[in-house]
Amino acid sequence: MQIRIPHVVIVGVGFAGLYAAKTLAGQNFRVTLLDRRNHHTFQPLLYQVASAALSPGEIAVPIRHIFSKAPNIETLLDEVTGFDLKNQRVLMDDDSIIYDYLIVASGATHTYFGHDEWASLAPGLKTVEDATEIRRRVLLAYEIAERDAQLGKPVSPINIVVVGGGPTGVELAGAMAEIARQVLADDFRAIRPATTRVLLVEAGSRILSTYPEDLSRSATEQLQKLGVDVLTGAAVTEIADDHIMIGDKLLPSTVVLWGAGVAASPLGKRLGAPTDRAGRVIVTEDLTIPGHSNVFVLGDLAAVKQSDGKPVPGVAPAAIQMGKYAGEMILADARHQPRKPFVYHDKGSLATIGRSAAVGEIGRAHFSGFPAWIAWLLVHIYFLIGFHNRILVLLQWLWAYVSFSRGARLITGQSRSVAPREHGVVHEADVSNEEVAQRIGNSVPYR
Amino acid sequence: MQIRIPHVVIVGVGFAGLYAAKTLAGQNFRVTLLDRRNHHTFQPLLYQVASAALSPGEIAVPIRHIFSKAPNIETLLDEVTGFDLKNQRVLMDDDSIIYDYLIVASGATHTYFGHDEWASLAPGLKTVEDATEIRRRVLLAYEIAERDAQLGKPVSPINIVVVGGGPTGVELAGAMAEIARQVLADDFRAIRPATTRVLLVEAGSRILSTYPEDLSRSATEQLQKLGVDVLTGAAVTEIADDHIMIGDKLLPSTVVLWGAGVAASPLGKRLGAPTDRAGRVIVTEDLTIPGHSNVFVLGDLAAVKQSDGKPVPGVAPAAIQMGKYAGEMILADARHQPRKPFVYHDKGSLATIGRSAAVGEIGRAHFSGFPAWIAWLLVHIYFLIGFHNRILVLLQWLWAYVSFSRGARLITGQSRSVAPREHGVVHEADVSNEEVAQRIGNSVPYR
Repeated sequence: MQIRIPHVVIVGVGFAGLYAAKTLAGQNFRVTLLDRRNHHTFQPLLYQVASAALSPGEIAVPIRHIFSKAPNIETLLDEVTGFDLKNQRVLMDDDSIIYDYLIVASGATHTYFGHDEWASLAPGLKTVEDATEIRRRVLLAYEIAERDAQLGKPVSPINIVVVGGGPTGVELAGAMAEIARQVLADDFRAIRPATTRVLLVEAGSRILSTYPEDLSRSATEQLQKLGVDVLTGAAVTEIADDHIMIGDKLLPSTVVLWGAGVAASPLGKRLGAPTDRAGRVIVTEDLTIPGHSNVFVLGDLAAVKQSDGKPVPGVAPAAIQMGKYAGEMILADARHQPRKPFVYHDKGSLATIGRSAAVGEIGRAHFSGFPAWIAWLLVHIYFLIGFHNRILVLLQWLWAYVSFSRGARLITGQSRSVAPREHGVVHEADVSNEEVAQRIGNSVPYR
Repeated sequence: MQIRIPHVVIVGVGFAGLYAAKTLAGQNFRVTLLDRRNHHTFQPLLYQVASAALSPGEIAVPIRHIFSKAPNIETLLDEVTGFDLKNQRVLMDDDSIIYDYLIVASGATHTYFGHDEWASLAPGLKTVEDATEIRRRVLLAYEIAERDAQLGKPVSPINIVVVGGGPTGVELAGAMAEIARQVLADDFRAIRPATTRVLLVEAGSRILSTYPEDLSRSATEQLQKLGVDVLTGAAVTEIADDHIMIGDKLLPSTVVLWGAGVAASPLGKRLGAPTDRAGRVIVTEDLTIPGHSNVFVLGDLAAVKQSDGKPVPGVAPAAIQMGKYAGEMILADARHQPRKPFVYHDKGSLATIGRSAAVGEIGRAHFSGFPAWIAWLLVHIYFLIGFHNRILVLLQWLWAYVSFSRGARLITGQSRSVAPREHGVVHEADVSNEEVAQRIGNSVPYR
């Protein structure tokens, strides 16, 4: 039965993969979702986990649960290692799946511009694990300072440095300033978190460079009002345990967060199609790769040009539109209808900065401050996957807004850089488990 | 200023330490809370995190946040290594704190009866990390079975074995049965989670042995109704990756959970006072240790007899009463009032089994099923620390109750048994961080 109906395999369940699947739900196709994670992460709110405003469970939903009512959609937790386009196969470790249609949407990860040694010193923000690691480091910095102060040891001021003035860096910097100035204000006795220096470092001439200049200016002012120092034209040349270098200028740092470079998932290159400098697959006008009209590449993994020649931005709305488009084209094929080229509809963009602080651009209109923030809030709550999360997140936010309290301010687990034996016997190596985790847990980060 | 007022140091912020501190909040004492975790864990609901019904952030609250409005209470995230009673010092790695009063309430951990090699094969449930590790293993078991089934590989049935028929084991077994029969029912295509076998193994003659026999019987029946096989008089002699042995009988197991032995925190022995077989400190009638009326030992770490000679049970209400008592005695000393001996008020006990299933004993009255479950629910929501959590947890539960959905069904992080290098470069060793985590992160689990 299943053998006869065409099989669509979707690799990576970010926004693009998710909406492609939603479009095919209940249709006469067998759809297999392949992801190394069991959950879809609502990336736009990841920084709220990093800043302890939300718990991971509030911004991530089990993939198979999203499609529990769609019997034609299967979910597979596994690791894609490559593709055999000639035989229409997706390759895993020692397994493979045959497809009629392939959708690759494994997204992007952060890049350290060749300085991979910075990765452990300056975590980025792509996964739930990244977010909880950032939360752990930031909260721990205050705990250590408080302890040292109480024990009469010398305490150096806390400097949180965020590298990269794009939307992620701006979100993180604003959130870190809020934690320091508001959330933790009353909770310490020997140190004053409000004296924390939050520094946003951008190599370019202005932050939020994809936005109009007036909004960059406004964003800078709003960040400064939150207590963030914004440093532009400042390229990081070194990151160490306790400082960063900008040119030959040394800046002390307690915690460094990485909001800079983004590179496409390595899976793109394994398709054998041409890629751009960022490793994104250069797709045809129907988002497929040359010579393979049944292989779509979507979301951050795809390099797509708009009619005006500008690239389609790597944002959630674009990924969602691509996902829907791919699903519709597959349905069109079944109806023997011709494919229309993909057209990106720019509905405007919003970047949040902090409590009542944001910037937005919708058509020719530019917004700043509270109105932009409310717009951002509503849009994101609306798009949050999973009704039950949507309600609870709204409540969490309302609560956090009135109380400045942080429900998710937990330091859990170990630094992922601590060897397991140090956990003591309870966590000693469990081989079978280890193998499983290796097979399933470690690979190219999906979007 | 602080130097003159007496200094109370509380080691371990479980229920006992927490309520001792609450009693001393705003009083003319300087109070220092010492814990290796930054959060107080609401242990009675830990099994709900293990069963993905709640997120860690919903049952754990940052300790310093609980006391943000009590300026006389400081929180210190650090690792206690021992005590110097003669010089009234609490010892950490290379620091120490002088106290006037010492309260040690570092609780209990699970013991494997000398089979420490079982620890990695059968995680217990004492910390948030334990709970998320159990959640990870259980969810992963279904993911792997589904994948193998979809890839046409042989799939062996899923057997979840819970060792130990005490309250924790009963909670876990009931929760696992619910996940299998209800929560995951519609989410898989190639396997039927409802066919999972959940087995509760108890060495003694009956489960919930601290309860009256009729309630043990009722609990067994309620478990069976949920789909749990209850095996009593069955001592586990071996635990392996894929099976356990009971005597010479082999039972296949996919996941094994440990709800059996409990041992006092090693810190108890380091007080140099007499301890019982379980390592609990044998305290005097005012819960102090012989010859040191300023050193209290509370909660699961203390061996206390009731007037009738029965031991005070290791339950939250007892810990709370001891904490309040110690705080009051310290205040009494300041007023030069004599100390009254500690008296445990048994307000009855409740054990939850699952959805609408529980048993309870209040005075002579015995409850079962829905009424007992409602009583349990109300009591626990009431006691949940942190108003904002209380509300959200209630909502989570209501939602989970009507929808059987599980908001927290995430597989995050790696098995704590996977070496960090396997995480890939993003998680490479970060020495400074590692040292910190070693100093703060690893030690005797507190209650």
